[in-house]
Amino acid sequence: MTTTLLVNGLTVADAEHALAVSDRGLNYGDGLFETARLHGGVVRFLPAHLERLQEGCRRLGIAYPGDTVIGGDIDTAVGLHREGVLKIIVTRGQGARGYRPSVAADPTRIVALHPLPATIGIEVLTVRWCNVRLGRNPALAGVKHLNRLEQVLAQAEWDGIDIGEGLMLDTEGELVCGTASNVFVVRNGTLRTSDLRFCGVRGVMRGQVLRVADELGIPVLEEPLWPVDLEEASEVFVTNAVRGIRSIVALESLRWPSGPMARQLRQALEL
Amino acid sequence: MTTTLLVNGLTVADAEHALAVSDRGLNYGDGLFETARLHGGVVRFLPAHLERLQEGCRRLGIAYPGDTVIGGDIDTAVGLHREGVLKIIVTRGQGARGYRPSVAADPTRIVALHPLPATIGIEVLTVRWCNVRLGRNPALAGVKHLNRLEQVLAQAEWDGIDIGEGLMLDTEGELVCGTASNVFVVRNGTLRTSDLRFCGVRGVMRGQVLRVADELGIPVLEEPLWPVDLEEASEVFVTNAVRGIRSIVALESLRWPSGPMARQLRQALEL
Repeated sequence: MTTTLLVNGLTVADAEHALAVSDRGLNYGDGLFETARLHGGVVRFLPAHLERLQEGCRRLGIAYPGDTVIGGDIDTAVGLHREGVLKIIVTRGQGARGYRPSVAADPTRIVALHPLPATIGIEVLTVRWCNVRLGRNPALAGVKHLNRLEQVLAQAEWDGIDIGEGLMLDTEGELVCGTASNVFVVRNGTLRTSDLRFCGVRGVMRGQVLRVADELGIPVLEEPLWPVDLEEASEVFVTNAVRGIRSIVALESLRWPSGPMARQLRQALEL
Repeated sequence: MTTTLLVNGLTVADAEHALAVSDRGLNYGDGLFETARLHGGVVRFLPAHLERLQEGCRRLGIAYPGDTVIGGDIDTAVGLHREGVLKIIVTRGQGARGYRPSVAADPTRIVALHPLPATIGIEVLTVRWCNVRLGRNPALAGVKHLNRLEQVLAQAEWDGIDIGEGLMLDTEGELVCGTASNVFVVRNGTLRTSDLRFCGVRGVMRGQVLRVADELGIPVLEEPLWPVDLEEASEVFVTNAVRGIRSIVALESLRWPSGPMARQLRQALEL
């Protein structure tokens, strides 16, 4: 399987030359993205992805292209494929030089279906701390926007398959997330995850875990987490829309079991 | 004059389709840019721009293409033009899906010559406060990278020509910069500007002002500024490589003269 690519609804034959240099997505990271799992011919949790994309557009003041238009792009990109990673980008579109957004800009839509990553299906991770911290800005907190240099620099800190994810603190030392995941800790049967009030992405899988935990009667707290919460946890896992729920079993000298809460949530979400 | 555009050294005939969708500049804002003034056929302070670009590449771990290569692009883009705005973008290049940078990626170079903005030459500004704050992150402070959503949202707060710039505080209330400029305040003959240790861009014109002030024997302090410093200032100005040194004369109920320090620095820098 090769990557299928659509720009503004048109299948692009040559991925080399498909985007305008004046696109504000390139110039300022002025846009949003979603990464979803195609599984058995179905895009998992698609309504939640589109809802977050729409909310992100609202936060940035970008005109949301609409579920119908993006849904049409997705159908074309998916075609007859059964498995893959669907990536959706919406930028503010082309613009003149300068930060100020033009009111008239037509958003750019990019929809791509990529092959599954080689490491898909791994459900047990050793993780590390990232040195790069997350800056705090409530204006952008939670939004899956295209300003991702912090995550890029964080992932550049290690290589190889022994480490499955890096955990990130914000500049004040709060435990916020992984480089491409949200973090949950279990203590005394209660599920806790960062409230993301200052930074981090409000993950779709995070939202599904919160929803299904509530349905299962598992107590949930969205609140600030700190590194010490890991030491006191009976179970730790990270969530990601493509990779599902992955148990963290090791971080430096800390060890946790690949625990029952992650299994219960995977089953409930049919992952 | 229309915009002249080069991508990786090749003049692009059709600006609509010149960039790969897989470019990390688009996907993550994973790159850097420079905006310089072409004046009388010369790119002002070009060595300082290239030096900052190289330093930015070093900070982000992007291979700097080299002064010779970028200089060649600039020569081609400038051609016989005498006036304009030169924009240089260097991204980490194309990549597979995922934040982790590929070691082998060839950086993408974009060099464009744009017409001068209509408001060029205005040297007296009324400014406003921006509501959007700057997040603090020492890992990215000072770098002119492509993650610029804070500036985009800040400039979206107002429109029209009555307000010439917006001043930005960081999340802790420090006065850092304008949306597209650095800020200087004068008090008792001393020039003060933010040290940019947590956020903001280390502007090329800021550097030139610091250099020439030192040569002129003007005392200079790079240190944290706060809004109260504006109230105590005898003169305030903003700097930008394209627009030079512009005096701030009004901010809400505050008023300053279009003062002698800005004039002296403009003359010394031959702006």
